Order: sequence, then structure tokens, then C-alpha cells
Amino acid sequence: MLSQSAIDSAVRAALDEDCPWGDITAESTIPPDATGKARLMPREAGVLSGGDVFAAVFRLQDPHITVTLSQPDGSAFAAGETLATVAGPVRGILTAERVALNFIQHMSGIATKTRAFVDATAGTKARIADTRKTLPGLRRFEKYAVTCGGGHNHRFGLSDAVMVKDNHLAAMREAGLDMVAALAAIRSKVSHTTSIEVEVDSLAQIPMALEGGANVIMLDNFSLDDTRRGVELIAGRAVVEASGNMTLDRIPAVAATGVDVISVGALTHSVTAIDLGLDWD
Amino acid sequence: MLSQSAIDSAVRAALDEDCPWGDITAESTIPPDATGKARLMPREAGVLSGGDVFAAVFRLQDPHITVTLSQPDGSAFAAGETLATVAGPVRGILTAERVALNFIQHMSGIATKTRAFVDATAGTKARIADTRKTLPGLRRFEKYAVTCGGGHNHRFGLSDAVMVKDNHLAAMREAGLDMVAALAAIRSKVSHTTSIEVEVDSLAQIPMALEGGANVIMLDNFSLDDTRRGVELIAGRAVVEASGNMTLDRIPAVAATGVDVISVGALTHSVTAIDLGLDWD
Amino acid sequence: MLSQSAIDSAVRAALDEDCPWGDITAESTIPPDATGKARLMPREAGVLSGGDVFAAVFRLQDPHITVTLSQPDGSAFAAGETLATVAGPVRGILTAERVALNFIQHMSGIATKTRAFVDATAGTKARIADTRKTLPGLRRFEKYAVTCGGGHNHRFGLSDAVMVKDNHLAAMREAGLDMVAALAAIRSKVSHTTSIEVEVDSLAQIPMALEGGANVIMLDNFSLDDTRRGVELIAGRAVVEASGNMTLDRIPAVAATGVDVISVGALTHSVTAIDLGLDWD
Amino acid sequence: MLSQSAIDSAVRAALDEDCPWGDITAESTIPPDATGKARLMPREAGVLSGGDVFAAVFRLQDPHITVTLSQPDGSAFAAGETLATVAGPVRGILTAERVALNFIQHMSGIATKTRAFVDATAGTKARIADTRKTLPGLRRFEKYAVTCGGGHNHRFGLSDAVMVKDNHLAAMREAGLDMVAALAAIRSKVSHTTSIEVEVDSLAQIPMALEGGANVIMLDNFSLDDTRRGVELIAGRAVVEASGNMTLDRIPAVAATGVDVISVGALTHSVTAIDLGLDWD
Amino acid sequence: MLSQSAIDSAVRAALDEDCPWGDITAESTIPPDATGKARLMPREAGVLSGGDVFAAVFRLQDPHITVTLSQPDGSAFAAGETLATVAGPVRGILTAERVALNFIQHMSGIATKTRAFVDATAGTKARIADTRKTLPGLRRFEKYAVTCGGGHNHRFGLSDAVMVKDNHLAAMREAGLDMVAALAAIRSKVSHTTSIEVEVDSLAQIPMALEGGANVIMLDNFSLDDTRRGVELIAGRAVVEASGNMTLDRIPAVAATGVDVISVGALTHSVTAIDLGLDWD
Amino acid sequence: MLSQSAIDSAVRAALDEDCPWGDITAESTIPPDATGKARLMPREAGVLSGGDVFAAVFRLQDPHITVTLSQPDGSAFAAGETLATVAGPVRGILTAERVALNFIQHMSGIATKTRAFVDATAGTKARIADTRKTLPGLRRFEKYAVTCGGGHNHRFGLSDAVMVKDNHLAAMREAGLDMVAALAAIRSKVSHTTSIEVEVDSLAQIPMALEGGANVIMLDNFSLDDTRRGVELIAGRAVVEASGNMTLDRIPAVAATGVDVISVGALTHSVTAIDLGLDWD
Repeated sequence: MLSQSAIDSAVRAALDEDCPWGDITAESTIPPDATGKARLMPREAGVLSGGDVFAAVFRLQDPHITVTLSQPDGSAFAAGETLATVAGPVRGILTAERVALNFIQHMSGIATKTRAFVDATAGTKARIADTRKTLPGLRRFEKYAVTCGGGHNHRFGLSDAVMVKDNHLAAMREAGLDMVAALAAIRSKVSHTTSIEVEVDSLAQIPMALEGGANVIMLDNFSLDDTRRGVELIAGRAVVEASGNMTLDRIPAVAATGVDVISVGALTHSVTAIDLGLDWD
Repeated sequence: MLSQSAIDSAVRAALDEDCPWGDITAESTIPPDATGKARLMPREAGVLSGGDVFAAVFRLQDPHITVTLSQPDGSAFAAGETLATVAGPVRGILTAERVALNFIQHMSGIATKTRAFVDATAGTKARIADTRKTLPGLRRFEKYAVTCGGGHNHRFGLSDAVMVKDNHLAAMREAGLDMVAALAAIRSKVSHTTSIEVEVDSLAQIPMALEGGANVIMLDNFSLDDTRRGVELIAGRAVVEASGNMTLDRIPAVAATGVDVISVGALTHSVTAIDLGLDWD
Repeated sequence: MLSQSAIDSAVRAALDEDCPWGDITAESTIPPDATGKARLMPREAGVLSGGDVFAAVFRLQDPHITVTLSQPDGSAFAAGETLATVAGPVRGILTAERVALNFIQHMSGIATKTRAFVDATAGTKARIADTRKTLPGLRRFEKYAVTCGGGHNHRFGLSDAVMVKDNHLAAMREAGLDMVAALAAIRSKVSHTTSIEVEVDSLAQIPMALEGGANVIMLDNFSLDDTRRGVELIAGRAVVEASGNMTLDRIPAVAATGVDVISVGALTHSVTAIDLGLDWD
Repeated sequence: MLSQSAIDSAVRAALDEDCPWGDITAESTIPPDATGKARLMPREAGVLSGGDVFAAVFRLQDPHITVTLSQPDGSAFAAGETLATVAGPVRGILTAERVALNFIQHMSGIATKTRAFVDATAGTKARIADTRKTLPGLRRFEKYAVTCGGGHNHRFGLSDAVMVKDNHLAAMREAGLDMVAALAAIRSKVSHTTSIEVEVDSLAQIPMALEGGANVIMLDNFSLDDTRRGVELIAGRAVVEASGNMTLDRIPAVAATGVDVISVGALTHSVTAIDLGLDWD
Repeated sequence: MLSQSAIDSAVRAALDEDCPWGDITAESTIPPDATGKARLMPREAGVLSGGDVFAAVFRLQDPHITVTLSQPDGSAFAAGETLATVAGPVRGILTAERVALNFIQHMSGIATKTRAFVDATAGTKARIADTRKTLPGLRRFEKYAVTCGGGHNHRFGLSDAVMVKDNHLAAMREAGLDMVAALAAIRSKVSHTTSIEVEVDSLAQIPMALEGGANVIMLDNFSLDDTRRGVELIAGRAVVEASGNMTLDRIPAVAATGVDVISVGALTHSVTAIDLGLDWD
Repeated sequence: MLSQSAIDSAVRAALDEDCPWGDITAESTIPPDATGKARLMPREAGVLSGGDVFAAVFRLQDPHITVTLSQPDGSAFAAGETLATVAGPVRGILTAERVALNFIQHMSGIATKTRAFVDATAGTKARIADTRKTLPGLRRFEKYAVTCGGGHNHRFGLSDAVMVKDNHLAAMREAGLDMVAALAAIRSKVSHTTSIEVEVDSLAQIPMALEGGANVIMLDNFSLDDTRRGVELIAGRAVVEASGNMTLDRIPAVAATGVDVISVGALTHSVTAIDLGLDWD
């Protein structure tokens, strides 16, 4: 999902953002030929995401810097393990350090949080999915980080799947179409390769969603009991997604209802950075 | 700080990110001439930031949408107050909604957190400042949000102020320069309009920092006692900044030591989105 | 699908491409204040696509030019009907003319060709769909033009639907997975909102594709008889797409087999421009 | 004409267009370390154009893919000849395949069509030239492909040569200038390195065009007889270009009139892709 | 030549360059609602160029600022004349002032210098032309400024005219072609709308240049006598351009030799800014 | 200050500007495999700036060209010394030559002029500084060139230091704040790492500037006597900058007054290119 070209252009923009006129401190203190070596060290446990992005920041700042990653993305790490070594011109390493950490701390924060949610589904078939509640410009990186934590991606954006919400249904109703007719109308317009998800607010809407041929039914803010009933009602005829204020402590119970997917906005909209630092040898 | 051109280009990129091939749901359900009105409503209390950005998302999606902001950025709001109204073509409003919320929820999250830190300094002269620990591509928006919460900006990046850390001093030492000589050497190179901040790890370094003419001295991870002693030692000859794991509960005590500035990375690196939603009339 | 921002940026690039240093002919012959009016006239019958793009070229060249479209995209027109009027500064109209025509002639060429294919499916339920065989940089415009002709879009690109071809299956087989297992493995990785299409070369593969839960089955280069048998075999359990050298004369027979979708690369990879010109009043 | 930087930026844009969120099929089926080899094979005869562009698509998708071209651009090929080999990571090859083919099939389509027109001028001095009727954003690639087929480029755009048409002359007449005076006025404004071409509708205009010092005279939609007379009248004092509905079957006769240049819009505005495919070893 | 889109994108880049994080002075001193009016005043005489660019800087900084130009580009002005008024929000005017002046002072510097050179050709037919010795990124603005001063443009760049220099001829000689054959070979390759200029170092080369059909012959670093002889020798069969260290004091004599064009690198490579300032009412 | 990425993107834009459709002369005369070697030779003495930029132009035009710099930036050179050698494909060297020279001639022109100003301060502590009077888009390169000549940079733009001028003070006065209060108000808003410079028009303003805590005081258009008195009055409590019409002949006397900084707009707004050429071996 993260192409090298996507990484490089985000990294270049981040370096420009931090450094429009150069690193005036490093340029006035560090000789251009001084070299050194530093290690990326976690101050707390977590799950790694963003190793290639971290490396790209240093490479794009100065191609003479080499970054060696000790672990692949998705690895769980403990505080104090070496995650990567960074070697080469000290000046470039110091200049790039903060931007590189900003990426990897945020991405690993997402992966770590996701892993906790995934672990909370243990013993069930439920997958943890992200949402479109991502930070502008960073969706690619954030959705990738979710997969590093063992989560799954929901649709990437507004173009790759239909998600019918109450406002859409209301507009269709004004045009004289009930949910069944609305879903048929949508199906007749979108690509035959496009899935249709319908958000329902009550059990009562489920039969029509099924009759309309929804591929995915999202149970929005359902109680645990209703969720269970929804799963029974749908009975495998559509993918069942549970959504709405999915805090970590609620996950085991929701997962146990038999839903296929639990989508969690907080995976990406409220992220706590993992504390990582660069220690010099 | 947030020029219209900076807002517009970030918003355009965010809309493209969410919507590379159009909003296939809205386009197949909402008639192009349907109009409506919705209100931006908080589900929880907070401090507003990003009103203009929120408005720009709708305007750039469809110039026929008008957004009326009820409160200026920096206002404190309670759950349930109307923050803005959005009126015009329903299709465009639905398409732009998520991106607009992603910006304003994040920015208001920062403003709200900052306000809490600022409030914790009450009765002291300490200002709360941000850091360079921002999300790549969003620094402009995040640093602006900090000011909405009553905080202050630290340097914008590596080009607008000198910040001398241990690695820089180590390199100067290898060139035979102690801290005093190092600061003189730096001063001789950088612009006469550039301030120099020095990070010190112990009280023992302060006299040399002062002798070298540092404009700002950062007490890095000092105990409360040492912070107090540092303030006394510096005695107004340089700005005193305290830094290092500045959690909210520590702020009152740190501020009470008499420092001028407390810098807090978590204002921007670990943000909890404020829960805002769009309710249709 | 065609946002104003997508149109504007393609149009700006096209004007720059044609005119890096200005229109040296118009600038040395046409007074800046000369105004006039011209009409967009077809020299042959066709189906219109690209009216908004045509208008945008003139508007972006000179905001004082106004374009009035006589017919919406998707309209069939005869030779000699006025399709639009263009009024304003002559200099800007002459400068923008060729670029505006290049867009609308190509897009209307696609719409016209598509309409012929769609007409050839009359009396059947088959839809005509495009492919990814589009001209680099123009996919948005070309896929939109297909819909103007009454066709449907296939997936937009590699990110919005799974299309499993022989090479993918071969790689899965090397990993010890047959088609059923392969489809399950894919399903476990991609978003729960993503459809999976499988390309089959023979009737024999269909049962496994169904068992694997393919949402769409593409019959690749099947004979008419086999296509019919494929439709029967699938029996509504998946969408049936026919593909491979779908020339216009073959469409009625293929559509009559009962397939749901016929995809046609030539709609976009081999386009004959519709002859349109600008006639001055 | 095709600089590496022009190629690379068009290719990057095309890959992004096809693949905004990655190739979800290849990523869920092909192991990252699987390697293979495929050959670029024509299904029909033609003239090659775009080898370097084809190679660039794979290289920019994954630098570990190597493309070896068997023939230079401009070569005629038969169905079934190997045109290139593509070796390396299977995942990247599959992801890049369609974009690479989209470029080379279109460019080779132009070169092949051009070659047919050039062949039809055999035994005459007439050159076949393209026009500004190109697809937006692709002019560079299309004009290069024309030269691969043995054709010549007309002006690149509105900035590099003057082309005086009836509308320009009409505006000059309103200012009291006949064609001779108009050409003098133009010459006095444009660079001394700029050629001036005049489009004439009748033999009667030719003497004035010559007196005005036109470097090129375009005979627009002339009959064969008039074309011949035009050539005689001009008698080498200006380059003679014939234009207007130049279909392949008319070329030999037009070329035989003695014109210097025949310009053909259809070389680029109505292109039939050459059928090329990637066959795996 | 200067399209609004070219102006706007250069201006946006210049504002970003000056103001990556806002105008911290104006933002902390000028109330957002303070309005005022200032006049653009020359401190010395000159020729105006860049009025529209000057206006665009203020408009793009803040659309509420209005700029009224008192004189068109190309006007001669004396010290103390009002050239434009700028009215609106003080904050935006102060922020944009320096960038606006940087453009117009440089462009007017070029126009003023060019006017002096043009005046020095009085009574002759010689035109003053610029060269490709322009500042990177500013060629459009600089070549436009030359025309404001009454000068003419030479070719815009390497794509719009052939200029054969000694190195090109040397390479052709190695391929066995003398100048006549070389010019024929070039003519056979380039567009029939492209002029060919040849640079000659001695009178001896002129006959071959003429025989080869050069459209323009550049006499490079010729003495006055040789220039005169060159003009006689060419006798109107090609445009004659004189070039090489054309300082202002040499122009009258060179122009008097009868050359058609004198090209002057210093018009753009060594520019003295005209002193213009903004005076507040 | 000049990152490789900043250099590369400016160079790419400059090559595109000069060469939108290729170098039609070199492409029709120089065989693609011809190689050669040329030397960068000054025709006059000067100070070098832009070696890396010069090299980047050739590298980005054709990676097979190698440039070897004989001297580092900042070196003084005499006419006739070899400054660099350029070896590789002749075609690419000829195509890139002019753009490469345009950069290095301008940058060396700035460095050379700056060196003259710096030399004129000999025996004093005054540094020569640049201003924001730079050419749009080239500030990075121009400010770097100033340092090559031994000068210092003033602020980079409007974001990295406060510069309070009369208009700002006038606005503050309307809000009831004298200079002391104004400076306090500004200090309370801007970052604690930001220096504040105040421009004063008379000696009378100096005490308030000092009381307000200005870090830098600029004496604007002071007589020599007043400058001397200003230095005495300030007595080391702020950096003293002299500004206003600082021509080379005035520098020794101004520097002798004891000021810390003399800022000179003409270093960058009125640059005479150094005459450098490429001589082929």
C-alpha cells in the first residue's frame, strides 16, 4: 500500500516543512565530514510501524546515511531493544532525526493501539477495522500502520465502496424509493465490482437491507443484545460490521456477539505517540 | 500564520486523498439540486480551532455551500452548542463532511489540550509552548491550534532559531571549543537576528551558557528543586525553558518555580480528537 | 466523478502544454479588446461528453469568456446542431480553442462509441463496461465519457477491487493453495468492503470460483456457447462478466447469452475523435 | 524531445492514477520475493514507439525490475516477435503492466499509423506532419511517436511559430491592414527567429502571402488541381503545406502535386492502439 | 506572454518563500481590521514593467486589497509620480509589500535598461533583442519586461528555433558534413515552421551560411568594419544579428552598420533594480 | 542552507523553462554517443558561488555527465583559471550549458560583490548582511551566495525574526501603546526564541527601543555622526545595524563607527553577472 514514491514525496514535504532554510544549528556546529552512529531505541513497549519511512527520511536528507532496520514492521518490541541503526554524516542525521521520529512514533502508536484492539478479539472471528477518521494527508500511512498492528482496512475513501447512511436513504425516500428500491437503484449505477454497505440504526431495518442485497450491514451504535440479534437475523447473508464508540474495554463483548468486523475510529483519530529516541554510540 | 493559500492547498490535498474518483455513494443517491442545512455540534466540551479550515473544505468541494461560523477560534464551547451552520447542496456537504471534521476535530483536540495546560499555569508567568513533535505535513495547523488554546509557539523548525543540544556541543568540543567558545562561534555564523537556545542537563552548565550569551536556556529533565535553582542562577539574564515529560499534573509545580516557558511535546504528538458531528436540520 | 478541481488542474496543464510562452499569433494580430461570439458545431452526429471541460478551458484562459452549453452531456446530437456558444474576448477564444476541442472531441468520441455498444445490447440485461486500458493521465475523463454514452465503469484502478488473474492464481498454487483456498486467503486480507472478481479461462474453473465466493466471474475469451453455459452454471450466484475482443458486431450475441457485464477495452484505448469545430458568428 | 524527466513525471502520475492505494490483488497474492520474467509480444504487426517509457514504468514501480529492449523505437515488427523482456519481482511487474502497456500501445499505434502515411508519399518529397490535435497532457509522447513512424513535427504549440488563419486576418482587416500589411505587422512584433505560416483558402490569396513574406503557406482544403496550381504559383518561394481531411487513400495524389508538407490531424486525434501483451516465461 | 496563471503561480511561490510561517511582525502589531492606503512611488526615473504582477501579489495575499495602476507597462515615469495606489487591510499590504516591490523593481530595471538600448538605435532599423541569459525561473517575466522597454525577444529557449554554433558545426564536420550540408541535414529534421540561425565567426563563413539557407546569421564578436561588410555580403538574404559584448556606448555605431538585430545579454543577466517604494497616505 | 533537494527542484524547473520540447539544435546535429570535455573558465576575476548548482544542472540533464569542481565555493579566482571540468555526452553538455551558466554567473556575481563590501569593512567588527530584496524564487541561492562572499544573512523572511518599522509602531500608537509598550506586547505574542529588531529614524527613539528590550536596533539612513552617537548610546545593549543606501564607497566610514552590522540591499537586488564560459578541449 505504501509505495516508495508515496513515501518519498511525503518525506520530502516533511523535511521542507521542518527545514525551509536549512538546519542553522547543525550547520554552524557540526563539521560536514563528521560521521557517527546512533540507534533507534524505544522507551516503552509497542508494535513497530514505519521502518521504511524512518529510513527514507535519512536517505533523502543525505544519501550517505545508511539505516539498518533490526525488525520488520508489525514486530512487537520491548523498551530498550534496538530497532534500527543509523550511520553516516552526523550533520544529516541530526537534521533528519525529528522528522523521522515524528513519522515512526505516530505510526507505531497506531500499530500498538490496533494490536491491543486485535488482541481483545481473541477467540472470535471479528476483525478490527479502521475508518476514514484519519489525519489529512496521512491516511496512507495511518491505514498501513493499522495493518501492522493486525487490523484491517475499511474502505480507503469515498470512491472505492458504497456506504449508505441515513441521509442518503432520506434523499432516496423523497424520490419515492424505500431501502430495497434505493439499494437496487444504487446497484444499477455503480460498478459491478463495488460492494454496498448499509448503515442501520435498528433491527427493523435489517430485513430490507438484506432484501436490497447489501453486501455489508453496519450496526450503528447497537446494544450488545441487539448486536447479537442482528448477527442472528443476518445469518451470514451479509458481512456484519459493528460500529460506534468502540472503546477497548467493550471489544471482547462485541466480538463475542459474532460480528465480522468492528470498526474503530479512535485507531487513527486519537493516537498516542510511542516514545522512541535516537541514542548515539 | 494560517494563510488562505496554505489552508486551500492542504484542503485540496485532503479532498483528493478521500475522493480520488468521486463520492460514489452520494452521486448515486443524492440529486444534484437537493439542498439542505446542517449544524456543527460538539458531543463534548472543548476549545475551538480550525473554523476557517472547516469552512474551506466545504467551499472547495462546492462553492455553492456556505458555512457560517458561530464562534471564533479559541472559544470554549460546551456539548450541544452550535458551532457552525453549513447550508447548500446536500451532495457536496455529505462528500466534504468527513474531511472537514477530520481537520477541526484534530485542531480542536490540540486547542483543548493546550487550554488545560495553560490553565494549569494560572498565577504564574510561565507560558506553555509547543515543540517540533508535530505530525508531518500538519505543523502549520497544529502550531496554530496551540495558539487557539492559549499556548505559544516554540521555533517553527530548524531554520528560525538555534537550539544547541549535547550532540552539537560534543562536536564543538572535539574541535577544541568549550561551551562559551562554541556559543561565540555559532553567534559569529548565524544571522544577528537569530536567538540561541542551549539545552543544559545540569546546573553546572548554566554559568557557561550565560557567559556564552545564550538567549534561552532549556533545563532538560530537571527536578523541581534544580529547576528552582536554575531560575535563581539565571536570574533573568536568559529566558528559562523547562522541558521533559511535562504531563498535566506536573505543570502547576513546574510553573511555580518561576520558569518562563514550559514546552510540551504531547500537545501535538499525542492528540485526542474532540467529538464533533454534523446534525441535519 | 469529475470534480471541478480535477477538471481545472487538467485544463491548466493542457493550456500550459500548448502555450508555454503565449499565443504569439493572436497576441500580434488580435486587439486585446476585440470581442466576438462563436458556436460549437458538430460536423457529424454523436453523443456529447465534456461540456464542462470545454467551458473550463475558456474560463481558465480568460475569465471574461462565457460559455453557454445548449445540451447536457449524454445528449445525442446531429451534424449542424449548435452545442454551445462561446462569447467574449476574441484573443482568448482563439488561444483556448484547440485545447477545448481536443478535450471534447476525444470525450465525445468515447461517448459516441459507447452508445453504439450500449445500443447493441438492447433487449438484454447486459451492461457495457470500460476497462483500465485508458490513456495515461486521462482516465477520469475517459471513464466519465463512458458513462455519458450509457456505459458503466469497471473498477477505477488497482486499489478499488480485486481482480484475480492466472498469474495471481499461479503464485498462490506455488504456495499450495488451490483457487478456493486462494480466494479465502485474499478475502482474509482485503477490506470487507472489497469485491473479488476472478478471471476464468474455462468452464471447469467456475465451480471453484463459486465455492471460493467470488463476487464477479469474468469469462475470458469464451465462445458464445461456453458463455451461455457459464451463465447457467453460475446461476446468479455471482455477477457474470464477458471479456476479450468485444467488437461491436459481437455484442448482440454475447449480450443475448445472459451475461451481466460486457467489458470493452476499445471504448478507451482506440478512440476516434468526433469532428467538432468552432464557427464564428 | 522526450527527456528522462518528462518521461518520469508522466509515468509517476500514471502509476498514481492507476494505483492510489496500492495493487490490492497483487499484494494479497504474490509473495514479495517471487521473481519472474515476461516478454512484450505484439499480437499484430506495427512500428515500435515508447520503449523507454515502457521501461520507465517498471523501473519507477520497482527499481529491481530490469527491462531489456530488443529493438529501438522506429523499428517495424511482426506479430509474435519479442520486443522486450521484463525481469524481476513478479508483484511489481503485475502492478506496472497495464500502465506500461497503455503507453506503448498508444505510442506504437501512432507510429504505425504515421508509417503508413509516410509510405504513401513514396517517390515524392512530401513530408507527413502532425498537428496540435493531440490528447491533453500527452503531446510530448504523441509528437515523439510521430517521428518514430517517420513523420515530422509541425509546431509544438502556440508559442513557437506563427500560424495566421482567417480569424486573425479578419481582425487585421478591421484595423485597416490587408494581408501584406498584416504579415509585415506581425513580423515587426515576433522574434526574428520565428517563422510565419499563413493559411489560404484560395489560389487568389497566394500572391499576397508571398508578397508579405510568409515562410510557409498552408493550402487549406484545396482540390488536387488547385494544390498543383498552388505549388506552381509559390514556386519554391515558401514552404507549401497541404491540409484538410488527409485520409490515407488521398496521400499519394496529394504528395504527387509537389507539396512539401502534408499535415494530418488523425495521426494523433484518432489512434488505434497496437495490440501488445506481456507473456510470462 | 504573461498569462494570469503564470503570474499567479510565480507570485504564490514568492509569497511562500518570504513567509513560510506568516508575518510574525504584522500579526503581532497590526489589527486585522485596520485599513489604509499607500502609493507606489519611484525614487528615480524609469520605464514601468510588472504592474499586473505587482497587483497580483497583493490580491493573492489578501483579496480585500485593491490595486489601481496609474500607468500601463511600458510607460516612462519620473521620480515622484504615483504609479499605483494600494488600498485595503494594512496587515496584508505590509506583508506583501516586499515581494511586490521585488518583482516590479527588477522588471522595471530591465525595461529601463532596454529602453536606453532601444533609444541608442534611433534612426536605424536595428532592433534590440534579449538572449537566454536570464535568471532561472524568471525568464517569462524578464522577456516580457524587455518588450515593455521596446526591445524584442530572441528565441524563448532551446525548443523554438535552431541556433547553430561552432560546436554543432564541429560535430557535423566529424560526420563529414560541411556547413551547407549540415544546414540541409538540420532542415530535414526540424519542423518546417522552424527558423535556423547560424553563428559565424568570420566573413568567410557567410557564403556557406547563405548557401545552406540560414534564416538568420549571427555575426559573433565582429568588428564594426566586418559587421558592415557582413551586412553587405548578406544583402537581405538572411536576417543579420550582431552579438557579443554589446555595451550601450557601442550600440549607435553597430546599429548604423545596417544590422537587423542586436542581441544584448546584459539586458537580463545584469540588472539594476529601479528604486520604487510604497508611501502611506 | 542549500539542500540537494532545493537545488534539484530549482534546476529541474530551470531546465524545463529553457527546454520544453527538447534542444532541437543539439538533437539534429550532435550524435547521441559523442563525448567530450569542457572547462568552466572565468573571463574576469571574482569569487565563486554555485559550484554544486552548476554540477547539478548537468547531472540532471544527463546522469552520464560528470562535473569536477576545482575549487570550493567562496574561493577567489582570476580570469583564466579553470574552475571546473565537465565531461561526458556532448549533446547533454550543450543543452545544459546555458542554464548552468545562468545560475553560477548570477551567484558568483553576488559573491564577488559581497566580497568587495566585506573587504571594505577590514579592521572593524562590522559584518555585511543581505536583505529581503532578493529575486522571487531565488532567495535561497542568493542568500547562500552572500555567505560565499563572506557576508552574513539577515532574516530569511517574514517568519523568522520580528522587524518593527514605523508603520507597525504607528498602528500600535493608535492602540495607545508607545514603543516600550509595543515591544512588550510583541514579545508577549511571539516565540520566546524570536529576536526583535526595531528600526529607528532618529537618536531620540533609541532609549525607548532599549527600554523595550529590542535585541537589534537598526539605524535607518543615519548620518555618520548620528551613527557614531547611536553606537555610543546603545553601548552594547543591543546589536546595532546600519542601513540605507549603503554604497561601497560609504562602507569603510560606516564600519568605522562601530556598528555591528551593515545591511546592503544591492548585494542581491542589483547584481552584475560574472563572465564565465565553457571552453571545449
